[in-house]
Amino acid sequence: MIKVRLMQKVMESNDAVAAENARKLRDAAVFSVDMMSAPGSGKTTILERTLDALIPALTIGVIQGDVDTTRDAERVQARGAQTVQINTGGACHLDAPAVAGALEDLDLDALDLLVIENVGNLICPTGFALGAHERVMVLSVTEGADKPEKYPAMFRSCSLALVNKTDLLPVLGLDLEAFAEEIARVNPDMQILPVSALTGEGMEDWYQWLRDRMAEGQ
Amino acid sequence: MIKVRLMQKVMESNDAVAAENARKLRDAAVFSVDMMSAPGSGKTTILERTLDALIPALTIGVIQGDVDTTRDAERVQARGAQTVQINTGGACHLDAPAVAGALEDLDLDALDLLVIENVGNLICPTGFALGAHERVMVLSVTEGADKPEKYPAMFRSCSLALVNKTDLLPVLGLDLEAFAEEIARVNPDMQILPVSALTGEGMEDWYQWLRDRMAEGQ
Repeated sequence: MIKVRLMQKVMESNDAVAAENARKLRDAAVFSVDMMSAPGSGKTTILERTLDALIPALTIGVIQGDVDTTRDAERVQARGAQTVQINTGGACHLDAPAVAGALEDLDLDALDLLVIENVGNLICPTGFALGAHERVMVLSVTEGADKPEKYPAMFRSCSLALVNKTDLLPVLGLDLEAFAEEIARVNPDMQILPVSALTGEGMEDWYQWLRDRMAEGQ
Repeated sequence: MIKVRLMQKVMESNDAVAAENARKLRDAAVFSVDMMSAPGSGKTTILERTLDALIPALTIGVIQGDVDTTRDAERVQARGAQTVQINTGGACHLDAPAVAGALEDLDLDALDLLVIENVGNLICPTGFALGAHERVMVLSVTEGADKPEKYPAMFRSCSLALVNKTDLLPVLGLDLEAFAEEIARVNPDMQILPVSALTGEGMEDWYQWLRDRMAEGQ
């Protein structure tokens, strides 16, 4: 059974609640990541592989934001993560109060890492801090290299881009450089890790990025 | 030079303005389509091919919704379409008043067909009628077959799904039936046309759909 929370319209300031979430996570020594992307970028598949690779060495919680279904939450819970689903009831992004509610359903003291999988959307989630230590985005190579310029706020708000589905690059006739250049133009500080959640290529670099950031965060 | 309009926050009822847009388009005998999709589905490439195939037999206008750039508008204007860009200023969807403004910049009496390319987003555009005759969505096969269940409002609001990038189906190990079944579960009345904007496969069916609907609409 997956715990499902309905997102409520609230009047509290999102930023104040996000700061409170951040404090709670820091106090419990839980490193947290807000993962964002367009629909179909492979976010959930990356998350599944990550859970397979890091559990049981790490204890991991997942807050799953979804418009309408528990489909993704079921996929990650099957991997042994503490899972809470936030049903946004049609809303196009998570917000800090919804995450604050979900944090109450998790045993934070038992967790090393919390991944918040945001709603698939390259625009709306950007404006709502959740309190996570880092914002990471997933960009599928099938989306084309013009996305940074078209969705600049998203690319500027994240510290890391996982450029996924690299196994399809030869078929698409694209190379990684095209993506790296377009990303650098919009956010020169953004770190880029090419990955294929399908073949596993590059995924170890992502796991190491998480381990490094967790080590720094303690 | 592409005409660029900034989207304003307005207090008018979106639906009333959408009805007014619909009346204006009907009076000028312009058949109109609101195209929606996730980022990177290939909407603009489909549009480019469509303009190449149908101009000059038809006179076509394009209203291009984009968060921040004129990149897509430049692509379609180069194809000989009357083009107006709506810069949403970060907003995640077009609305009817923005489209009403753009209609003023088009020579409607000269147009046979108007394509409104909405902002790349599977959630927010659904709630804002623009006044177009038909809503069409593009779903790339790379996004996976679970999207109808995850974004049901979008799939229910459209009459046609162009399932794009079918050239990648063998590489992905997927077949069209998986997509058709998932779509039918959410919207049994939705028509599905598999296309590859890259190879041109299936595109003639889409052009014929447009011609048929235009003939009905007159």
